[in-house]
Amino acid sequence: MNNFIFENATKVFFGKGCVKEYLCCLTKGYGDTVMLAYGGGSIKRNGVYDEVTAILKAAGKNIVEFPGIMANPTYTKVLEGARLAKENNVGLILGIGGGSVMDCCKAVSIAARYQGDVWADFWARPGIFDFDPLPLGVIVTVAGTGSECNGGAVITNEELKIKTGRDYPKCNPRFALLDPTYTYSVPKFQMVSGGFDILSHIMEIYFSEPDEDNVSDDIAEALMRNVIRNLRVAVKNPEDYTARSNLMWDATMAENRIIKLGKRTDFQCHQMEHQLGAYTDCNHGAGLAVLHPVYYRHIYKEGLAKFKKFAENVWGISAEGKTDEEIARAGINALEDFILEIGLPVNLRELGVDENTDLKAIADSCTIVSGSYKKLTHEEILGIFKECFN
Amino acid sequence: MNNFIFENATKVFFGKGCVKEYLCCLTKGYGDTVMLAYGGGSIKRNGVYDEVTAILKAAGKNIVEFPGIMANPTYTKVLEGARLAKENNVGLILGIGGGSVMDCCKAVSIAARYQGDVWADFWARPGIFDFDPLPLGVIVTVAGTGSECNGGAVITNEELKIKTGRDYPKCNPRFALLDPTYTYSVPKFQMVSGGFDILSHIMEIYFSEPDEDNVSDDIAEALMRNVIRNLRVAVKNPEDYTARSNLMWDATMAENRIIKLGKRTDFQCHQMEHQLGAYTDCNHGAGLAVLHPVYYRHIYKEGLAKFKKFAENVWGISAEGKTDEEIARAGINALEDFILEIGLPVNLRELGVDENTDLKAIADSCTIVSGSYKKLTHEEILGIFKECFN
Repeated sequence: MNNFIFENATKVFFGKGCVKEYLCCLTKGYGDTVMLAYGGGSIKRNGVYDEVTAILKAAGKNIVEFPGIMANPTYTKVLEGARLAKENNVGLILGIGGGSVMDCCKAVSIAARYQGDVWADFWARPGIFDFDPLPLGVIVTVAGTGSECNGGAVITNEELKIKTGRDYPKCNPRFALLDPTYTYSVPKFQMVSGGFDILSHIMEIYFSEPDEDNVSDDIAEALMRNVIRNLRVAVKNPEDYTARSNLMWDATMAENRIIKLGKRTDFQCHQMEHQLGAYTDCNHGAGLAVLHPVYYRHIYKEGLAKFKKFAENVWGISAEGKTDEEIARAGINALEDFILEIGLPVNLRELGVDENTDLKAIADSCTIVSGSYKKLTHEEILGIFKECFN
Repeated sequence: MNNFIFENATKVFFGKGCVKEYLCCLTKGYGDTVMLAYGGGSIKRNGVYDEVTAILKAAGKNIVEFPGIMANPTYTKVLEGARLAKENNVGLILGIGGGSVMDCCKAVSIAARYQGDVWADFWARPGIFDFDPLPLGVIVTVAGTGSECNGGAVITNEELKIKTGRDYPKCNPRFALLDPTYTYSVPKFQMVSGGFDILSHIMEIYFSEPDEDNVSDDIAEALMRNVIRNLRVAVKNPEDYTARSNLMWDATMAENRIIKLGKRTDFQCHQMEHQLGAYTDCNHGAGLAVLHPVYYRHIYKEGLAKFKKFAENVWGISAEGKTDEEIARAGINALEDFILEIGLPVNLRELGVDENTDLKAIADSCTIVSGSYKKLTHEEILGIFKECFN
């Protein structure tokens, strides 16, 4: 294994009823004012908003509302949240939602305690800070990004058309409340899109060097099989508690740094999807679903042994009578079949991306990562984008 | 999944050279005096002692020595450490060794900040405390207990002949330094004994309710396969860095609470071994190796589906042409074969336990746990002990 440093400070409360049981107690010690951050208002329709505000009011808290966080949270929105937090002497941000809300809140938690240019100093490039960000707690309502147990935040600078993520351990939420029943009301497309995001995170870590025997890879395979199995169950029965609880914990385990340990990680496909999202605002999980098979067919020969292992250990492909390349390709085909089976697109057109979009500009704006089996060029990325319309 | 709360505050530094790179910086902020806790002196022979003391001296620290922590650390030893820490105004305990050293240090960290009867209030039964234990950092030299990333400490009250463990999250080490090369000099018997302890921890968690689809079980299977594969490599080549680094991280992952999430856990076999250890001072991992197959043959029918899964997914037993019971038994046989293969005993006599030992007294002193597939009686435990001489 490669050397690593690991820490994860977030305290997790998991299971049916956890918000009612623990939220009140968890908000103690953070002053009188809580900033309630959320998205488009689904929490008002499914009752979560009423439940949470009742608990906060009973605890004597002042509530500052920070609604309307969008699917790809923008830097402008981050600045709005920071201004609100400063003006109202907020002591705790409480984010309710999925990855977008949590990511936005983490950036707000830095911006609320910083006088300089947050984008330039912390997102345009990795930054260093010695202050404590404004404390953050989260209530997760969509299983996907796993943002609840890391310091990662993907923010879109809409002016510069750059969507980029940074992971600052100091931005780890102080607490995360995960009630799988809160995910029941997520529309099916959002659920499978979040589910594919989980799978994508695990694959991006798994398909990276080093490839020596590594327990992190073994855990990654176990998680992938669990996501696939439970997503199939949840598609058929969205209120299957076992399936939804597994998916919720899979999401956290994929991004709580555990399976990254001793690995370089890749995330090239995420880099491409982020730029696609920055230009077209397409759905993140669905964008990844389109990109992954095409990207993997492009690089699998350079990571043949690992793609063979993926086919056999994750998808149960029999090696009998097949060459290594045939086994590897069968694994990628199985991934593509699964994407179709759960109702996600495998074509950018289906995702509503206009073929006349300036794909070259998007490709040229993508960050090229190291850690992958094949270091791409911007021309290759453009080729991959174009193939995604076939 | 069952509801759970998860936190793990220990910061881990993993890999070759981590002590040299990080120890100095990690000791800052804990006052001038460090208590150096260790066992029988192997760290003086393999150079670790010299390396660590040189770093501490260069950092300007006063060093208080607390050597001689025995394999099954006693309550008397805990009190000795606490007295030393109080008398010398120690700001940080630095434990160097395996589980015995780490466990003893955790109990010392409570005892050094408590005026009452530590055994009665915290080990005889679970206790509650609102003070911060004396800070502890650890340098791990044996892969086994995984004590580096939890608050668990197994202490033997030699007067009462009770060996019992408690897990207090506040006793989690502040930092853990894990250099796999530090485990190279561990004698082979100690290495396989520690390796079997890892496997035992995972099995004790895996063989427990609930048995619904649970990602924690999937991760447990991945860990068991990794331990088995890498222990085989390490037995042949003790200086295989990949194998030793996997085993070291397997040990942590088995006991950092992750695979316990959503599970009740069992640890009945550990309870039996603890009492065997309290009466005979036998080696912990080797004692577990003797007990496990006998115990599992006693309970497998009550957990048949899980033992079948264990046989197929961990040991690769083919189900073809076999009844479920035959598959389950084949898995337990494979476990026993593995124990023999790595050079551990499957008989208490080989372990040096006198057949005239008062087995009934040991059996009667064992705690009966819930969470297992079959709740044992003290008579059944006595029967299992007797079978361990066959």
